[in-house]
Amino acid sequence: MMLAWIAFLAGIVSIITAGLFLVIVLKEEVGTAKMKELSDAIFEGAMAFLNRQYRTLLPIVAIITIALFFVDPALFAHGAVGVNNLPKSALAVSFLVGAVSSAIAGYAGMLSTTKSNARTTHAARTSLGKALTVAFRGGAVMGLSVAGLALAGVSGLYILYENAVVINSFAFGASAVALFARIGGGIYTKAADVGADLVGKIEAGIPEDDPRNPAVIADNVGDNVGDTAGMGADLFESYAATSIAAMIIGNTILDFEGVIFPLLVGAVGIVAAIISTFFVRLNNDEGNPQSALNIGLWSTNVITAVGTYFVASYLFGDNALGIWLALLFGLVTNVAIGYLTELYTSYHKKSVKEIAEASLTGPATNIIKGLAVGFKSTAAPMLVIVLAIGGSYYVAQEIAAGLGIYGIAMAAMGMLSTAGMVVAIDSFGPVADNAGGIAEMAGLGPEVRKNTDKLDAVGNTTAAVAKGFAIGSAALTAMALFTAYAKSAELTSINLLDPMVVVGLFIGATVPFAVASRAMDAVSRAAFEMIEEVRRQFREIPGIMEGTAKPDYAKCVDISTKAAIKEMVAPGAMAIGTPLVVGFLLGPLALGATLAGATASGVLLAIFMSNAGGAWDNAKKYIETGVYGGKGTEAHAAAVIGDTVGDPFKDTAGPAMNPLIKVMGTISLIIAPIIAAMF
Amino acid sequence: MMLAWIAFLAGIVSIITAGLFLVIVLKEEVGTAKMKELSDAIFEGAMAFLNRQYRTLLPIVAIITIALFFVDPALFAHGAVGVNNLPKSALAVSFLVGAVSSAIAGYAGMLSTTKSNARTTHAARTSLGKALTVAFRGGAVMGLSVAGLALAGVSGLYILYENAVVINSFAFGASAVALFARIGGGIYTKAADVGADLVGKIEAGIPEDDPRNPAVIADNVGDNVGDTAGMGADLFESYAATSIAAMIIGNTILDFEGVIFPLLVGAVGIVAAIISTFFVRLNNDEGNPQSALNIGLWSTNVITAVGTYFVASYLFGDNALGIWLALLFGLVTNVAIGYLTELYTSYHKKSVKEIAEASLTGPATNIIKGLAVGFKSTAAPMLVIVLAIGGSYYVAQEIAAGLGIYGIAMAAMGMLSTAGMVVAIDSFGPVADNAGGIAEMAGLGPEVRKNTDKLDAVGNTTAAVAKGFAIGSAALTAMALFTAYAKSAELTSINLLDPMVVVGLFIGATVPFAVASRAMDAVSRAAFEMIEEVRRQFREIPGIMEGTAKPDYAKCVDISTKAAIKEMVAPGAMAIGTPLVVGFLLGPLALGATLAGATASGVLLAIFMSNAGGAWDNAKKYIETGVYGGKGTEAHAAAVIGDTVGDPFKDTAGPAMNPLIKVMGTISLIIAPIIAAMF
Repeated sequence: MMLAWIAFLAGIVSIITAGLFLVIVLKEEVGTAKMKELSDAIFEGAMAFLNRQYRTLLPIVAIITIALFFVDPALFAHGAVGVNNLPKSALAVSFLVGAVSSAIAGYAGMLSTTKSNARTTHAARTSLGKALTVAFRGGAVMGLSVAGLALAGVSGLYILYENAVVINSFAFGASAVALFARIGGGIYTKAADVGADLVGKIEAGIPEDDPRNPAVIADNVGDNVGDTAGMGADLFESYAATSIAAMIIGNTILDFEGVIFPLLVGAVGIVAAIISTFFVRLNNDEGNPQSALNIGLWSTNVITAVGTYFVASYLFGDNALGIWLALLFGLVTNVAIGYLTELYTSYHKKSVKEIAEASLTGPATNIIKGLAVGFKSTAAPMLVIVLAIGGSYYVAQEIAAGLGIYGIAMAAMGMLSTAGMVVAIDSFGPVADNAGGIAEMAGLGPEVRKNTDKLDAVGNTTAAVAKGFAIGSAALTAMALFTAYAKSAELTSINLLDPMVVVGLFIGATVPFAVASRAMDAVSRAAFEMIEEVRRQFREIPGIMEGTAKPDYAKCVDISTKAAIKEMVAPGAMAIGTPLVVGFLLGPLALGATLAGATASGVLLAIFMSNAGGAWDNAKKYIETGVYGGKGTEAHAAAVIGDTVGDPFKDTAGPAMNPLIKVMGTISLIIAPIIAAMF
Repeated sequence: MMLAWIAFLAGIVSIITAGLFLVIVLKEEVGTAKMKELSDAIFEGAMAFLNRQYRTLLPIVAIITIALFFVDPALFAHGAVGVNNLPKSALAVSFLVGAVSSAIAGYAGMLSTTKSNARTTHAARTSLGKALTVAFRGGAVMGLSVAGLALAGVSGLYILYENAVVINSFAFGASAVALFARIGGGIYTKAADVGADLVGKIEAGIPEDDPRNPAVIADNVGDNVGDTAGMGADLFESYAATSIAAMIIGNTILDFEGVIFPLLVGAVGIVAAIISTFFVRLNNDEGNPQSALNIGLWSTNVITAVGTYFVASYLFGDNALGIWLALLFGLVTNVAIGYLTELYTSYHKKSVKEIAEASLTGPATNIIKGLAVGFKSTAAPMLVIVLAIGGSYYVAQEIAAGLGIYGIAMAAMGMLSTAGMVVAIDSFGPVADNAGGIAEMAGLGPEVRKNTDKLDAVGNTTAAVAKGFAIGSAALTAMALFTAYAKSAELTSINLLDPMVVVGLFIGATVPFAVASRAMDAVSRAAFEMIEEVRRQFREIPGIMEGTAKPDYAKCVDISTKAAIKEMVAPGAMAIGTPLVVGFLLGPLALGATLAGATASGVLLAIFMSNAGGAWDNAKKYIETGVYGGKGTEAHAAAVIGDTVGDPFKDTAGPAMNPLIKVMGTISLIIAPIIAAMF
């Protein structure tokens, strides 16, 4: 148990470090009164959304918590040691802690990013290096909160109950929050973005982040809601689900060391991330912010790789090498998927250039080409994931003694151990984006804007890379959950030659399509409302366009919030309902296949939509650098249309796939013993 | 063997009937000299494409045929009766007959549809009823050729070799042709269509089918190349593959009656189709052509259902009811998928109306909505397919004595038995479309145009329904092939808990995305060339717009042809290469999972793309009826862009999924015994 305490402590240290960063950031100056006003509006919009979202989730969480009070933990932990000593409340408590921790991480991160934006703008008036530091620290609060709370939660509950199966309820709590945070956040951000762009940029002809645009604050809030809160909850869930799945698998095929190792990997990763935050700095203003962030990421990877080697050697003896190599597959996957995401979405590469070229013949060819790029971009990352699954299994099976399936879980754990740094870098994105927006809206000079633009450009890349990370880790998490599910339902074979298994597979593969449809539709409906509202304000409030009257920002924030809350329910219900219906109606074998099918098609759709969206976005930016005539040309107009189509792809429907496949896995894992007994 | 002769005879009767219809159609008058000239140009363009396509396939077919000469049939027919008496040439001959039969069906059908178009136009000068009869007979030649040649081929070879496994080579030959015909045809038709639309309609502002458009002939050729030749080859392949897979499965779990029954089901279906062709007629000009075609389809379904009941009773005794009910699942699937296709793609329904409404806010929202509809439209058809698989298995397993997997094959066979009528109705589409084009180009009066327009509108619906049929039957065919593969590789379990199986599943699920990308890209590139050429002609040939100079139609036909031939190779190679690489590298279990994964994601993508495309098309047509201001409005312009994006979706990438999943199954079935021995 000593070792579990070490992991718990590492989590606490991470949370404390996050707190310190927050204090330091808050001590920075905010800048002019106008800057403060804008920052406050964004902050209030973000908090309003979070409050409403969590208030909507409250009854759901409450009902599940109460229901879990009446479920005997012994049901879920058959065969494990010490089950009979478990308090009746173990499941309910674990669930509640998971949900609440995820919510706290969300609040902390949003507080930090929305408080850092104007401070970053102000710092950019001094130097690029200073601005980078403020923005990165603002993001690091989220990163370290997510990793710290997840690790402290899992290890703390394990210390309390000493049973890995029971605390899967913690992952369930995290899942419930992540599902709605991702989908709701995704709808919010794109309803605001599409609305702001279509009426503001295209119809009224005013630039991005213009204070005359009524939807501009909602748009800036959206960046935080989607990239910070959504992504944070997503990776919190992956982190919790993967470590618990790994512990469950470890418990069945190894001894105590198999259960404790995932927690220690997490501890090493967190320490690595904390150390690495200090490497993210620019020594002079000629430096490249991207390189500074890259150094942070690489250093986290290297320290984790080295550190886990020693831990593995200490715990596993002869099996250490095989297990450690499996872990390395996860770290390498991380790097490989990041590279591939850039390959398909950066405008220095061929794919995006081709989309830009296709814009010359209009929006239709731009979109056809973008869809083709998205489809194409699935193959290489899927190959990487397949290699990670096959490779980690192989080394753990052959070099370690028959620990193949534990190896797959280790690959997932290796990938996720760096989540603290990945989320930090990802949350840097909305801070930089907002900082640029505030510079524009507050009318600061071009030299400030130049600095914030540089940070914003880097933020776009890191956002794309983090998306790749989230998808890859979701895929490996889903695999770990799938394996844990089979163990928990005591299945030894899910035979594809059994028609019921094929039926399950097909049903599973269909769910991501249905959820994607719902998500796209939601954005479509919400954006429509937003467009009507922005048009109404331009029409009914005289003086907006002249800058003499202030638009009603709050009304637009409200529309996005309401739409997001309302529309997140149906896709959420599909995600939760499918495993229940398949499991109780068709049985554990069909449900296993459903998980496999949903993972395959969910990951493919996630990559497709995320990369297509990123590529369209950057094709537009590429043209804006002056290629094919730049802004104001037909080609640019076509590229803007492609970008708008890509928005709900990359920021709503695509990201929704991650919590979808994980929540399906988590719920299946929970009902596994029940349905196994039924069929 | 007497019974096999009956099936063979039914096939021959079908071919003869097709020949008679062709003679009757050719006896009709062509109309004015201008009409003849246009019809000849389309005919020549179509033949030029077919010749070039088959010439490109010739070396591939020749190499495979020669290679098969050196393979001992005994290898592929282990355990079957009479294997030792098989001539060495059995595999090569079967393959060659399959490829050549498919090509002959393609030629016959294209000859008939391209010769019927002007004749339909001419008939439309007399009456709607007369025009319907000519157009339908023109299409029926293709339908009866496809079904007749496929059934005669399979039963003829079975009479010759008395071994179902060996004649799977026939399906392989059909597959090779179908793969390239579908992909090549799809690229051809959309390169021409997109090129003609973007420059002609949007840039030059001239109407559809205007003789001043240089790409107009290529566009009309494309309708035949895609909908007739492509669809015909696709269903020829499904027909051959399903009946052979059913025979192989029947051979392993039943006696001779299990082998012969699929052939007799085919015979009943063909007789039903021939009888039903006589029901397709309009008694007066007030009648609805759609109802006339529906009567033909329903009558085919009903006669087949009744006829097969007697055949089943004769052959199977106590097992008859279960097997017959399984077959009914196929017929019902047919009807259900047709209904669902209409639900999502007809402009009398909600989905399409919503896309039209979304066009009010521009092309981006039109496309977002269309993608959402496409995603959504996958769920219900997948449920129907899943019910067909589960239901047919259940009745054959429980009501008949343990014949579950034969039941699944029977559902596929039931669905395909009506292929003769489905292809007839589908091929009616391009005839009607071309007839309208010729009326327009030849400057015939509005009363003629009114008649051809009515037929054309019906043709759009039947094309959508036939697409649904092709996808549904491809899914069931793939399932039958998958089952036959497992039997042939002597697999008793493909366990999803084996990581190698998961690896295979993920690889398989990725292939359809990669092929879709290639197909979209090909259209994109080819359309780009076409656009450049049309623009060049408008620029360099003076007098085109005034109608004083004739554009160079042949050049556009040539561009489409060359592009289609060149671009069909890469996706074709992926389809053929994947099972070989997975099978020989990762083994038979991984390959089995690859088939399952490819089927799941291929069918989903096919439905998604096909329905999204159809919905966009009809949203445009809906606006053209005058809704939201009709033609010339911003909403209409947005809808045209959606329609253009939908073109390669519904006519290139979507349809390419069918031969893809079938060819993967056919090749796997062929290499099954080899890899089973290797691993």
